[in-house]
Amino acid sequence: MTATLLDGKAVAQQIRDELTSRVANVKKKLGRPPALAIVLVGDDPASEVYVRNKLKTAEDAGMGVHLERLPGATTLADVLSVVERFNHDARFDGILVQSPLPKTLGKDAEQQVFDLIDPAKDVDGFSPISAGRVVQNREGFAPCTPAGVIELLVRAKIQTEGKHAVVIGRSDIVGKPMAALLLHKNATVTICHSRTRDLPAMAREGDILVAAIGRAAFVTPEFVKPGAVVIDVGINSVTKLEDAQRIFARYPDRLEVFRKRGSVLVGDVHPDVAATAGALTPVPGGVGPLTIAMLMANTVRAAELRSR
Amino acid sequence: MTATLLDGKAVAQQIRDELTSRVANVKKKLGRPPALAIVLVGDDPASEVYVRNKLKTAEDAGMGVHLERLPGATTLADVLSVVERFNHDARFDGILVQSPLPKTLGKDAEQQVFDLIDPAKDVDGFSPISAGRVVQNREGFAPCTPAGVIELLVRAKIQTEGKHAVVIGRSDIVGKPMAALLLHKNATVTICHSRTRDLPAMAREGDILVAAIGRAAFVTPEFVKPGAVVIDVGINSVTKLEDAQRIFARYPDRLEVFRKRGSVLVGDVHPDVAATAGALTPVPGGVGPLTIAMLMANTVRAAELRSR
Repeated sequence: MTATLLDGKAVAQQIRDELTSRVANVKKKLGRPPALAIVLVGDDPASEVYVRNKLKTAEDAGMGVHLERLPGATTLADVLSVVERFNHDARFDGILVQSPLPKTLGKDAEQQVFDLIDPAKDVDGFSPISAGRVVQNREGFAPCTPAGVIELLVRAKIQTEGKHAVVIGRSDIVGKPMAALLLHKNATVTICHSRTRDLPAMAREGDILVAAIGRAAFVTPEFVKPGAVVIDVGINSVTKLEDAQRIFARYPDRLEVFRKRGSVLVGDVHPDVAATAGALTPVPGGVGPLTIAMLMANTVRAAELRSR
Repeated sequence: MTATLLDGKAVAQQIRDELTSRVANVKKKLGRPPALAIVLVGDDPASEVYVRNKLKTAEDAGMGVHLERLPGATTLADVLSVVERFNHDARFDGILVQSPLPKTLGKDAEQQVFDLIDPAKDVDGFSPISAGRVVQNREGFAPCTPAGVIELLVRAKIQTEGKHAVVIGRSDIVGKPMAALLLHKNATVTICHSRTRDLPAMAREGDILVAAIGRAAFVTPEFVKPGAVVIDVGINSVTKLEDAQRIFARYPDRLEVFRKRGSVLVGDVHPDVAATAGALTPVPGGVGPLTIAMLMANTVRAAELRSR
C-alpha cells in the first residue's frame, strides 16, 4: 500500500489563479492592487529565503509589495515604529513581520510586534484578536499554514465531518489554530504534544493526522493508522550525514540530494509512512506552497474589506 | 465503587476568602472596592436568578456592584450605548452583560455587545481579544466556567499533566476555552461534539471528562472510564415527571425534590455515573459556585490592573 501524494503545489497554484480576478477588482476600486508590506529584521538565511518566496509570489500575482529591511542591531522600538507607520499607511493592506526576530530584541519582542499590527492588516493572523476570531469561528485572518491545510483537505475532497483528527504540536501559529479550524469542520479533534503519554498510540487514533512539531522524521509508521490522511507541516533541513543515512536508508534519490548539496529537506513525517498512510503531503511541495498562497489570499481579502 | 464528590462550593468559598485582602488593597489604592457593572435586559426568570446570585456574591465580598436593567423591548443600540458608557466610567472595573439577550435584538446581538466591551473590563471573557489571549496562554480574562474548573482541579490536586482530557461540547464560553486551558496544563485534549462518531467510546478514553453540552443526564456510565474524574458543567431543570422518574429512578430523595417543587436540577451527567467515576462534581454545588467565584476573581484582577 502506498499513500496518494497530496499535491500542495498544485492546490496552491489553483488558489493563486483564483485570486487573479479578485486582484483586478481591487485594482479597479482602489486604483492599486492589494499590497503587502514585509518587515525583515537582520539577515537570518532561512528568513531571507522565505521572504524572497513571498515577495516573488506576490509579484507574480500582480500584487504590490514593499520590503522594509532593518539591521540585526535594530531596537524593538524601531521595529514597533515601522509597524505603527505601516498601520497608518493606506498604501498597504497587509503587514507581515518575518519571524523569528533576532534574539537580542528580547523574549517578548515578537508578541509585542504582533500585538501592534492593526487587526485589519494582520494577514499572518498572529495577533490575539485574530486568534480569538479563529477560535470563535468568525470572519478574520487565520494563520496561513493551518488555513492552507484546510484548503488542501477541502479541495482534495477529504471528509472531515465526524472524522477523528489528531494534531501533534500546540504552537500558536500552527497546532492550536489547526485544531480550531478542524473542529469547525466538524472533526473530533485531539491535540497532542511533548507531554502526551504514549504519543504513537494516540496519534494512531487519527483518521487525519497533522504533524507540526518541527522534528525531522519524528512521525514513524507506528504513529499512523493504516489508510489515514497524514499532513506534514514540518520543513527540516538535515545536515548530518548519519541523520540522512538513517532517515533515507531506503531512498537513494534523497541521499543523492544530500550528497550533492550537503543537506536535504525532510518533514516531521518519516518517509516510510508513505507505506501506511492512505494520503500524504510531500516535503517539499506539500504544505509549504499552501502557506504562501494563503498569505496572498489573506492580503487580497484585507484589500477587499478596505475597499468595500 | 463510588466517586469522591468534588465540592465546588467549598473551593468557591476558598477562592472568595482569598479575595478579601486583595479587595482591601484595591480599596486602599483606588479609594473604592473593585466594582462590577451588570446589564440585564428583559425579565428572563433564569437570568434573574443568576444576576441575583452574582450581585449577592459581590456584595458579600465587599465589592461594588451596579445593576443596569433595561426593558425587554430595548433596542440593540440602547444596549450598546450602555456598554459604551460603562467602558468610559472609571467607577467600574468589570462589565457583564447577562446572556441570553432577548431574541428580538437579533442573532448577532450578543457578539456585537461582547465585542464592544473594553478588553480591560471584559471579566466574562467573551470578547475575541479575551478568547485570543486564552488560546495564546497569555494574561487576560478567561471565561469564568472553564477557569473555575481549572481552579477546582488544581485545588483538588488532580493531575492534568500527561492525562487525557476529553471535553464534550464546543461552545465559545465553555468547551473551547476549557480545551485551551487544559492544554496549557499539559493535558492531551480531545474535543467531542454532536458530530462525533461513537461519542461514548471517545468519552471513555478520558482520564478527565468534562461534560458541557446542556443536555440533562446525557453522559451515562458507558461514557466514563472507570475511575475517571468527571466534571459536570450542565445545569438543567427537569420539569416533566416522566423525565424525573427515568433519570432519578434509583434516587428517591431527588424524586422527592421534584414532587415538592415540580422541578429538579440535573447536570449533563447521569447520577448513575457516580458508581463508575473516581471523582465527580455534584449538581448543584459543583461547577456553578466556581463560575461565580471566578467572576469575582476576574473583577478583582481587573481592578488590580487598573490600579497598578
